[in-house]
Amino acid sequence: MDKAAFWNDLAAQFSVDAIRATTAAGSGHPTTSMSASHLAAVLFADHFRYDVGNPKNVANDRFVLSKGHGSPLLYAIFKALGVVSDAELLRLRRLDSPLQGHPAPLQELPWVDVATGSLGQGLSIGLGMALGQRMAGSPGRVWVLMGDSETAEGSVWEAMQAASYHELGNLVAILDMNRLGQRGPTMLQWESAVYSDRARAFGWHVIEIDGHDVVQIDEAYREAEQHDAPTFIIARTLKGKGASVVENKEGWHGKALDAEQAKAAIAELGGERSLSLSLAAPAEYKASNGGSPVSLPVYTDGIATRKAFGEALAALAARPDVVVLDAEVGNSTYTEDFEKVAPERFLQMFIAEQTMIGAAIGLQVTGKTPFAATFGAFLTRAYDFIRMGAVSRASIRLCGSHAGVSIGEDGPSQMALEDLAMMRAVQGSTVLYPADGNSTAQLVQAMADRSGISYMRTTREKTGLLYGADEKFPIGGSKVVRSSANDSVTLVGAGITLFESLKAAEALAADGISARVIDAYSVKPIDAMTLREALEETGLLVVVEDHWAEGGLGDAVLAALADGGAPLVGRVIKLAVTQMPGSGKPEELRDWAGISASKIVEAVKAAPA
Amino acid sequence: MDKAAFWNDLAAQFSVDAIRATTAAGSGHPTTSMSASHLAAVLFADHFRYDVGNPKNVANDRFVLSKGHGSPLLYAIFKALGVVSDAELLRLRRLDSPLQGHPAPLQELPWVDVATGSLGQGLSIGLGMALGQRMAGSPGRVWVLMGDSETAEGSVWEAMQAASYHELGNLVAILDMNRLGQRGPTMLQWESAVYSDRARAFGWHVIEIDGHDVVQIDEAYREAEQHDAPTFIIARTLKGKGASVVENKEGWHGKALDAEQAKAAIAELGGERSLSLSLAAPAEYKASNGGSPVSLPVYTDGIATRKAFGEALAALAARPDVVVLDAEVGNSTYTEDFEKVAPERFLQMFIAEQTMIGAAIGLQVTGKTPFAATFGAFLTRAYDFIRMGAVSRASIRLCGSHAGVSIGEDGPSQMALEDLAMMRAVQGSTVLYPADGNSTAQLVQAMADRSGISYMRTTREKTGLLYGADEKFPIGGSKVVRSSANDSVTLVGAGITLFESLKAAEALAADGISARVIDAYSVKPIDAMTLREALEETGLLVVVEDHWAEGGLGDAVLAALADGGAPLVGRVIKLAVTQMPGSGKPEELRDWAGISASKIVEAVKAAPA
Repeated sequence: MDKAAFWNDLAAQFSVDAIRATTAAGSGHPTTSMSASHLAAVLFADHFRYDVGNPKNVANDRFVLSKGHGSPLLYAIFKALGVVSDAELLRLRRLDSPLQGHPAPLQELPWVDVATGSLGQGLSIGLGMALGQRMAGSPGRVWVLMGDSETAEGSVWEAMQAASYHELGNLVAILDMNRLGQRGPTMLQWESAVYSDRARAFGWHVIEIDGHDVVQIDEAYREAEQHDAPTFIIARTLKGKGASVVENKEGWHGKALDAEQAKAAIAELGGERSLSLSLAAPAEYKASNGGSPVSLPVYTDGIATRKAFGEALAALAARPDVVVLDAEVGNSTYTEDFEKVAPERFLQMFIAEQTMIGAAIGLQVTGKTPFAATFGAFLTRAYDFIRMGAVSRASIRLCGSHAGVSIGEDGPSQMALEDLAMMRAVQGSTVLYPADGNSTAQLVQAMADRSGISYMRTTREKTGLLYGADEKFPIGGSKVVRSSANDSVTLVGAGITLFESLKAAEALAADGISARVIDAYSVKPIDAMTLREALEETGLLVVVEDHWAEGGLGDAVLAALADGGAPLVGRVIKLAVTQMPGSGKPEELRDWAGISASKIVEAVKAAPA
Repeated sequence: MDKAAFWNDLAAQFSVDAIRATTAAGSGHPTTSMSASHLAAVLFADHFRYDVGNPKNVANDRFVLSKGHGSPLLYAIFKALGVVSDAELLRLRRLDSPLQGHPAPLQELPWVDVATGSLGQGLSIGLGMALGQRMAGSPGRVWVLMGDSETAEGSVWEAMQAASYHELGNLVAILDMNRLGQRGPTMLQWESAVYSDRARAFGWHVIEIDGHDVVQIDEAYREAEQHDAPTFIIARTLKGKGASVVENKEGWHGKALDAEQAKAAIAELGGERSLSLSLAAPAEYKASNGGSPVSLPVYTDGIATRKAFGEALAALAARPDVVVLDAEVGNSTYTEDFEKVAPERFLQMFIAEQTMIGAAIGLQVTGKTPFAATFGAFLTRAYDFIRMGAVSRASIRLCGSHAGVSIGEDGPSQMALEDLAMMRAVQGSTVLYPADGNSTAQLVQAMADRSGISYMRTTREKTGLLYGADEKFPIGGSKVVRSSANDSVTLVGAGITLFESLKAAEALAADGISARVIDAYSVKPIDAMTLREALEETGLLVVVEDHWAEGGLGDAVLAALADGGAPLVGRVIKLAVTQMPGSGKPEELRDWAGISASKIVEAVKAAPA
């Protein structure tokens, strides 16, 4: 059989299997799988270089199914590769099957690198992989299969600009231009010239092809492999290609064919097949090792925690796996300290937070340990990417600086006041909020070795020294920084509010009220035992946070106290920001918000007995 | 004085005043104000048509300072207009001044329509204003002043594509291409040809000018006014123009000049001036009124709340102020029901959630009552826009469909599991989660009249009927849907988990355990009194939610119980999703997550006494 015949046959098998799997499931997206069958057949049969036995091999090519609803196609490929059985394929979308409605990287599916299904994210993830490959000196290439609907997401254009800026000749995007979105035609339908102009204007090499002509596809892939700029292949396709009941028809986006329709469609596609696919091996590649021991900074005086974060990152540069991403605020978050010592592992994403996070997710696939930082307020821009990072089981480390009203004069647009809520509500996340330099440095190092999504909140202002360099800060722990046998109230703070709590405790002591003070530097997981003990012993907890009242430290404390139906006995007062702030001096704004030392004192004195 | 001389003089005054204000404040962004002084001078002196006495006049032109850190320029314009005094100008960034670090629409500043300061948002807001003007038949035009750094945000390109798709000839973007970002040069520096190619590829009319040449500026504005496509003016400028200490120099992004530097710079700019500016009046305009009474749907049987939402929206179409925005999922959220009856007020934004929210914020400036809907999971994409909507004091109504694991087979990428946490942590927000058709319809109507950011969470599955059409659902209320004198536990649910709670109560009754059941349809504000009473009377609350354990209904209930230091006596168990779900049937997944009726029964029986 000649190559073209094999490609066409393999494509038909992919389409047939996508139909069979979705019809068996009673739901799913067959037609979007079918439009890309030829694109996939040629790619995997003759271009993709990959070690199926070692998915983590850095020399591998990478494939990102950015249009994640095309998962039946992916699983059909896996079947042809012999890593998923036909019986498994027909158990698509069941609770006990790893073949989910949208792809997710599970232990049983090590060939899936990242989760997709929230559209417009795959290209930025592919960008990160391509950056990681290049840093590692890998011969691999990244192939991202995109839907046309998802080009409406701005994040796609962020990734486009970053790929040309970073000159990633190892990145190929394949646009499956099948004209139909979920509820009707896409914005540009088959206007390939418009896509082409846009991609070219964003610095990409562009190739337009018929996405069902295997020879054109093969030529396009060859051209992409030879080109030293990122290449954008615009493939005109038909949604539901090859089955007249669905081909190029509206109303068939996320819908399985019924048994009869499936039978006819499969016959039209030439019936079931069981072709096997074997992939070309990756090119030879030798990883370079190296690295030197990390020597964390040690503080003997006060420092802004954002600055300590930057200095700790700079120390971690001794580890060659550590890379840092910036969204054009490195002189505010102090990631510039890392840039100074390891510019080759400092990646400037400009003001494009979504792509910064997507790239971080891609980088960790290639074995890197990425840290990404911006103002905490602006991480809200990338919440969907962070959420999907958790579905990807990605290990990425985020830092949000400029927490709370304490930033002062710049006003509410720059104040992170929802970041704790947002980051707590990420599955498996770690949320840290250190108060001084030494705790910050240690927790930054702990993040480097932490799996999942971890987040550190830092403060703009310089704050005092609380701990010696030898103090340990386990994740999930807390510090009782002030206590006595006759405490009648416990003040719980973190970051900036820990200092307000300590000042309040001093003032209360002068009035004969003894206050315990807890540093809740680990907001998630939180130290429930110490908090419960404090409530039992003092009867009143006052939780103080420079954050909205919803979802932050106060809610975390309450949840910890109630956990598992533990008896609640006592009182808990949350002091948090409730009104929209303006500009002002940090200390003025804390007082205005009711989270200053004097307002804490007032709250304690006014608390019901 | 000829026009050009006046424009130049006025521009110099703006720059001088920006320097004076920031130097007086000791912080802020003079240089980014100075690069745009000529652009602003010509605009306001000779093109902008606006009724200063009536900022809400729909016939007005609108100005959006997308580069919000250029606020000193805006306040200098206000001073020239005579609405802000020179003394006030010099109180920039103080706690008791409305002149914040970034502009915010305050009662004292009715000439600011929206807050800016999170970059890349202004153009989508301007898009919404232009759509609103066109719908109203207003002669007004929208002028958006953009920074060059912010074009790195994908949201800018979403707005670009939407503006050309919607053929908004009344929208003008002015790019202040001053080459320097916060930490150094921008990605494209002065490569105006690249900006030009990109803007053209996105369907805009493009004009390139020297942004300090007032004659070129004037001509460009004239051309934009005559052109029937959206116009993108690329103005090459110098950051810090006119003052040699800062002009085109790095390291001067967010930094005030010291007193000596300011003195020299002001001298170089020709000293202080006190020119007055008066604006051209808007063209004649007569608003059309009309509308008919709203007749809400009434349900006598079960329905999916997402469908009831769509039908209630369709009923609200009787009000001409109501407009609906879709992100290409109208057949899933059922906003298509509105589209069918009022296509002229249904705005398709395609898969671009950020621009959907930005446009909604712009629309409400022009007197519209916007509703925007997508999958709840995908509202995470627009969290920064929603957050900024609150800073804008905007009244917008959001709906997130496909809540929780209950969506079933599509898997976690499509499941809203953090939306309650995210939306609760928006200042002044309203968060609703109705369970049946009649409560949904009433709450949709309540949202239309609600100020601030309101959010409704809807369910994919069809659920049963619980309430008659006459039942009232005040925001902040709850319903005790089952109770008796000897209840020993209270089950708190909302939406889908209310039905699981009711089933659990049935099963518990069969075992002799009497359970109260509360419908917490108003998650924020929440009905603290009813919850407290239930805890007091039954001793145990079990809160069940199809959401992560963090920041959702469970945390809201705990916060309500603790509010103001009320004594906590009893036990609260939160049942929520804690592990990453896969695909499966809705009821299987609820059981897997521990939030099904049978798992509620187990939890009640296992609860410590």
